[in-house]
Amino acid sequence: MQTIGTMIRTHPAETGIDRDLLARAVDLMVACAAACTACADACLAEDTVADMVRCIRLDSDCADVCAAAARVMGRQTAYDGDVSRAVVQACLAACRACGVECAEHAGMHDHCRVCAEACRECGDVCEELLDAMG
Amino acid sequence: MQTIGTMIRTHPAETGIDRDLLARAVDLMVACAAACTACADACLAEDTVADMVRCIRLDSDCADVCAAAARVMGRQTAYDGDVSRAVVQACLAACRACGVECAEHAGMHDHCRVCAEACRECGDVCEELLDAMG
Amino acid sequence: MQTIGTMIRTHPAETGIDRDLLARAVDLMVACAAACTACADACLAEDTVADMVRCIRLDSDCADVCAAAARVMGRQTAYDGDVSRAVVQACLAACRACGVECAEHAGMHDHCRVCAEACRECGDVCEELLDAMG
Amino acid sequence: MQTIGTMIRTHPAETGIDRDLLARAVDLMVACAAACTACADACLAEDTVADMVRCIRLDSDCADVCAAAARVMGRQTAYDGDVSRAVVQACLAACRACGVECAEHAGMHDHCRVCAEACRECGDVCEELLDAMG
Repeated sequence: MQTIGTMIRTHPAETGIDRDLLARAVDLMVACAAACTACADACLAEDTVADMVRCIRLDSDCADVCAAAARVMGRQTAYDGDVSRAVVQACLAACRACGVECAEHAGMHDHCRVCAEACRECGDVCEELLDAMG
Repeated sequence: MQTIGTMIRTHPAETGIDRDLLARAVDLMVACAAACTACADACLAEDTVADMVRCIRLDSDCADVCAAAARVMGRQTAYDGDVSRAVVQACLAACRACGVECAEHAGMHDHCRVCAEACRECGDVCEELLDAMG
Repeated sequence: MQTIGTMIRTHPAETGIDRDLLARAVDLMVACAAACTACADACLAEDTVADMVRCIRLDSDCADVCAAAARVMGRQTAYDGDVSRAVVQACLAACRACGVECAEHAGMHDHCRVCAEACRECGDVCEELLDAMG
Repeated sequence: MQTIGTMIRTHPAETGIDRDLLARAVDLMVACAAACTACADACLAEDTVADMVRCIRLDSDCADVCAAAARVMGRQTAYDGDVSRAVVQACLAACRACGVECAEHAGMHDHCRVCAEACRECGDVCEELLDAMG
């Protein structure tokens, strides 16, 4: 999403984190939140919804946590390392739990396969961010 | 954002709205929410923050409404036309108000220029959605 | 929730809307958002989850829209009537749709009964707000 | 907020966490999110907005993280300890950072005083939750 990258780069303040990494992270968090919202909803429409309960739960959590992380990391004014790190760690935990669950249904449901991939990419960029934040 | 399009298209249910339009709409709503969050924060870091108060307020509202609209329109199970229309109308109102305000600062602040453009694109796709929903 | 009332009343700006109404509205929107989130999740844990699909969908939408409306109406700086009205109208539509659906399961599930009541109260205060905003 | 307590108690599933603690936690998270949203907006309306930049930033983060934590902890279906703990830790970090900042302006602005108190109560219940989750 080109818009996010431009917004991050035209900001007057600085966090000390590389702006390309920041832009990529916010982009992947936002995409993961949307993917998880859509996956929870797609699971709900499956005939086998009773087997998808844990997947819907983790999708819902992951959507909420990724959305919050995208907002926090999309801000560069008066950067606070403790808050940022804790939020990215929560995002990483949610992405890993949801990614594992979705991957188990990836052979059966395309939406779970795509969502597992979004969770994996978002979890990976959280690890990169945690490295960069020290 | 390719992920959103794939999620919309791999969904087992149907809303009656064209899926490419739906995917484009959710993508633009999500981008606009992220742009408005970042613009509010960038305005806050400007020396002239006292002149950006109305912009920060409308950015904040627009971010919240676009994020809610992206979630509602990203769902295709048990589609409800009344709720969807009202949410898209709210998204349109927020995008138009925020877009006008950001456009006034576009010559001075690049983040306002990019955000005004995100609001315009998101408002336009809301109008397309409202036409499609009848 | 006493905190919200105090926050609304200690604000330096004015919207022209009665502050007690505003405080009551934000309180009920926030309570409805939490009730709908919990009801969607409780429906998901029922043995009859397959019968609760429409309820989960409308709960999810209503939670998202009420949360956005609570944020927008909780702000009093640089008040914009068009955005506020459209958001409250979306909140009203979501509360009515979700309230009707939850009421149908109220005899069977206590969480649906309580959630239907939260939706009714939130919908009613939205109507009061719309009257007050003219 | 009585509604939240009833929703938590009428849920068919179990997390292993005491339900009264859970209800109190979700209630305080929701109140803190609303207080921080209102405080950010009230700071924006102050003549001294340029001095409130860090407060607005931390209020905004804290509102987003508390809202996500309230949603995650308001769910009791298919409970995941790793995700819950990480989210509550992020909520704690955001409440502490925001509470310290708001407390510095408590003598000058009533909204900061009330918000600091909401952050303190929410942070404290996060610590109780972390103890209970082990």
